Order: sequence, then C-alpha cells, then structure tokens
Amino acid sequence: MSETERPGEFELIARHFAPIAGPGGLGLVDDAGLLRPARGYEIVVTADALVAGVHFFPDDPPGSIARKALAVNLSDLAAKGARPEGFVLALALPKGWTDSWLAAFAAGLKQAADAGGCPLIGGDTVSTPGPLTLSITAFGSVPAGRMVRRAGAKPGDLLLVSGTIGDGALGLKVHGPDKPGWVSQLGERDRAFLTDRYLHPQPRLDLAAALQAHASAAMDVSDGLVGDLAKLLKASGAGAEVDLDAVPLSDPARAAIMAAPALAELAWTGGDDYEILCTVPEKEYPALTTAAQAAGIALTRIGFVTEAAGVASHREQGRARDFTRGSFAHF
Amino acid sequence: MSETERPGEFELIARHFAPIAGPGGLGLVDDAGLLRPARGYEIVVTADALVAGVHFFPDDPPGSIARKALAVNLSDLAAKGARPEGFVLALALPKGWTDSWLAAFAAGLKQAADAGGCPLIGGDTVSTPGPLTLSITAFGSVPAGRMVRRAGAKPGDLLLVSGTIGDGALGLKVHGPDKPGWVSQLGERDRAFLTDRYLHPQPRLDLAAALQAHASAAMDVSDGLVGDLAKLLKASGAGAEVDLDAVPLSDPARAAIMAAPALAELAWTGGDDYEILCTVPEKEYPALTTAAQAAGIALTRIGFVTEAAGVASHREQGRARDFTRGSFAHF
Repeated sequence: MSETERPGEFELIARHFAPIAGPGGLGLVDDAGLLRPARGYEIVVTADALVAGVHFFPDDPPGSIARKALAVNLSDLAAKGARPEGFVLALALPKGWTDSWLAAFAAGLKQAADAGGCPLIGGDTVSTPGPLTLSITAFGSVPAGRMVRRAGAKPGDLLLVSGTIGDGALGLKVHGPDKPGWVSQLGERDRAFLTDRYLHPQPRLDLAAALQAHASAAMDVSDGLVGDLAKLLKASGAGAEVDLDAVPLSDPARAAIMAAPALAELAWTGGDDYEILCTVPEKEYPALTTAAQAAGIALTRIGFVTEAAGVASHREQGRARDFTRGSFAHF
Repeated sequence: MSETERPGEFELIARHFAPIAGPGGLGLVDDAGLLRPARGYEIVVTADALVAGVHFFPDDPPGSIARKALAVNLSDLAAKGARPEGFVLALALPKGWTDSWLAAFAAGLKQAADAGGCPLIGGDTVSTPGPLTLSITAFGSVPAGRMVRRAGAKPGDLLLVSGTIGDGALGLKVHGPDKPGWVSQLGERDRAFLTDRYLHPQPRLDLAAALQAHASAAMDVSDGLVGDLAKLLKASGAGAEVDLDAVPLSDPARAAIMAAPALAELAWTGGDDYEILCTVPEKEYPALTTAAQAAGIALTRIGFVTEAAGVASHREQGRARDFTRGSFAHF
C-alpha cells in the first residue's frame, strides 16, 4: 500500500535471476514465460510454498533454502514420472534483505536448476512485512496419459521406496536450535550427513522414466512414510502390509536410533524424506529394479498392496505396530 | 518447524477448493495437475504474488481478494493473446484464519475462475506467522509462436489502450483508510465505481484473440500507464509519442480530477488499471477495433510508436509533459 518507490526489481531480476532462465523465460523481460511440450506430451504441474520459520529456519544458508525449494518440487515431478521443463518462482522478500543474501540464494537456485535440467521461466518478486515466503510452480512433461498417479495401486502390487527413510526428520533435529540429547552421541560425520539430507534433498529425477514405464502408482515422501502411504492407499482404494524392518535406513539414521530407539517412529513418520514411494505390478518389478540400479538409486521392497481399502498394516519384528499419529503436516 | 499437527488441510481442500477444480486438477488429490495443450498450441505461464498490507488491505472482503488475485493473472494472459487453461494457487494462511473467511475467499475465487473459464488445477496451502500471502500461477494457450510479446512494437504502429485509465489508482484512495479531501467531493456512485474498479479489475479476456491476431506488442497496465509504456518501449527498442489528452478516463475519474487537478498524474502513473496497452500496425488497426467493438471493449488510440529507442514523449494540451516518477512499483 505504501507508494514509496523501491527501485531495483528489474535490476534484481537481470542480475540474479536472468542467468537461471531458459529459452521459455524470454529473458524474464516479458509478462509471461512459455512452455512448449513436444507433440504427444502433456504438462505436469506441481506447486510448493515454503515460509521462513515454518518450512526452514530464517538463518539457513540462502543457497540451501533455494536448493530445497526447487528440489521439493522436482521431487514431485520425479514421482509423477515427468521430465522437468521449467519453473516459476514467486518470492516475497522480508524487510532488510540484502543483495548478498539474494546473490547466494540465486546461486543455490541456479545449482538446483542446472542439476535438474529445469530452467526458470518466470515469476514475481514482491516485498512482505512478514517472513521470507517462496512459492515455486514446476513443470514437467510426460507422454499424454502417462503421468504416474497416486490412484493406481492394485492388490498384489509390490510396495517400494527409494533411498533411505528418516534422514530428513532426524536431520531437522540435528540442525535445529534445540538439539535433543542423542545428537551429542552421534559422530560428526553422521551429524553432517543427516543435516545435509535435511537441507539438501535429492530429487530422484533419474528414476522418473522408469516409474513412468513400470510403476502403477507413486508419490514422493514429504510428510512421512506412514502418512504418505495412507494418502496413496486412500487415493487407490487399496490397503497394504508393510514390513517396517525392511524400511531402508542410512547408517547415520541407524546410529541415531541405536542411541534413542524411539527415533524409529520419527524416521517412519517424520517427513522431509523426498524419496519415492511407489507400487509396481510383480511382473514389472524386475524391469523397474534394473532401471533403478542403472540410475544408481536404491529401491527397496517394503511390503505389498492388499484389498483392505485404506488399511495399512505395519509389522515390526513380527508384531503389529499402530500409528495413531500418521504424518507431520506442514499446516 | 512446529510439530503440532494441525489437521484440516485435506478437508479444507475438499470443501473449499475442489469445487473450483477442472479435469486437469485430478480432484486435487494427487501431487500434481495436468495441462494438455491442443496440438500446435503452447502454454503461456504467468505468476503474480499478493501480500496482505502490501497489495491489498487485510480486511478487504475475502471474495474480493480472491477475485483480484486471479484477475491480475488473467489480465496478463489476455495481454499475451492467450486463452485461459487453468491456474494453481499457493496460499499461506495467517494465524487466526477462519473457515467462514476461507469459504468467502473460495466463493470469490470460483466466481473469477468461472468468469474466466480458468479452473484450478493444483496448489499448496501452508500456514504463515506473517500476513496472508497468495501466489497464483496461471496458464493460457496460444498457437505456437503466436504469444503477443512486449518486444514487438515497430515505428509507425499505433498505440492503444483498453477501457479507462486511472480508476484503480483513484479507487485505492477512495477505498483506503486515509481518504484525501477530494474523496468527500465525489458522489456516492462515483466513489462506489472507483472502489469497485480497484477491488475488482476485469481482465480483458475477450480481447485476447484479437490481440493475438492483430497486435504487434502488448502488456497489461498494472504499474501505471506511463511506467508500463516505458517497459514496452524498452523491450521493443522503440519510442512513442503519447497524447495524454486522449487517454480514456471514466466519468468518475474525470469528476475526481475536476475536484483535484493534480490527480491527472496519479491516473496516468498510479497503476492497478489492468487494462491492455498494445501497439498495432496501421493496416491491422481497423480489424482490431472491429474485433474490440464486437467484444464490447473500448480501445482508444493514445499515440504512436517512433524510432527514438526508449524515449516516450508525452504531450498534454499541446505542451510536453515530463514524468520524473514513472510508475508505482509493488516492491
């Protein structure tokens, strides 16, 4: 509402964001960007908003904030079997932002955009009296009708998860200001590993083509394995039996759980994994695992899909395990 | 960062946002939406972020906030000659939001989405310790290679503007808490008209096809006619001569300027118009005006494009008029 002119938006875009722009961004000097899907392809659209103090710490490294903001969107595209095509960024900058903060933010964004093959094609930059707020909308392409949905799991399908689960939720504890006692029992390298997994999730883009070819359903694990599985099953009208002992853990996560066994539940429910949860018909399983191996991404079988609509039965060391609190909601 | 679970995101989406969703939204139960451009078409992408206390008053009617948030994006699509195909909404809700506020917000959003033929296809809802923040990314389709750009104005082209200019900026003064003296000199209907023009801009979607067919360059006027013209000319590497006396004004705007003549400058520079500024080759002018008349949208000739790169010469009552302060920047 203030009418004091604050110059700099155009210089800011030219200096910091134009280097991240792809051809569809038209140099970021127009009102709009362009997406040009190849013939027979359609565009998958996903959006994630992140707020300082809610989704990240305000004093996190700006490059890390940017990398994660794009990565969580690319993770959605990967789970949908889509190839990244571009993204737009809506950035609300709080009072007191500095050019050096923005330069570091843009450098991280460029790193993630280059790694994901996903150029900037537009956006908006505004000021806010509140916390830094970022909203990214990302675009990927899939052959028409081939987006991998949540609602495709069929009884008998195998249930798989990529990478390792729980690192992000444990990393948040390691990274945050109020460190629980177990953190001091971890070695420095384990702490660094978990923090890195929290700050810098790796979207599993190299799995996208294989998911598109073989998976019956998929989503990325952002709000916790248990809760996100429940969403996938609900969308599919199916159930699952899950072997919690099979859920893949990193060595640092194992070390943390060794120090404090209750952390196993945090690993299963805590979120911030940005791994892929998918289901695959048994006959497609060999082809999917072969493709995952070729991509260098671990894919672990953790259970199977049942007919018990909406019911996930979790077993740990031969005993049923009930989760009253399914997932962490960023809301 | 808080781990207190706040249930309701899924119910909230199902109750308030699913009714606005189109087929590409997949019921808003997946991680992504879909855009399926027709063969030979490409997707125009535009994004605008709005923050309470910066771009609107926090106690504005929620339906009006929603309508404007979508309208300013649709206005960009119209200026680019694109047909709306869908939008995503990232919504950061402040503490203390209520279900009735959200219901009114969603009703306004549905009204604007229906009017624009632009369904919701996805989004994200998060909480913020700061002010309400909305970010909309909207999508339109154009025949490949036919998006109307800023960078197409050629010397000799005519300079046109749709509707009337200045109503939004004057409406902000009428609507805001600190009303200048001239506001009390306006009649009630004039005040209501200007307030409505500020709160509820009308995207000129019915002009999009004609712009796509005939205009050499276009953009929507959001930051003030004078400043936005400067951007269009810079992008085009051209100049313009502008007859300020020809700039179309509504009767209520004329009444305000009569009461306080200095307001003329606010009308020309103040922003929030969401009208279309375009250039058209002289030979295309008859076809464009005919199409505009058929669409019921006034299109007024206010000048012409020159070779003087980046130089806009404004004349008022036969005298040169210089603008030291070009436009209002929401930043």
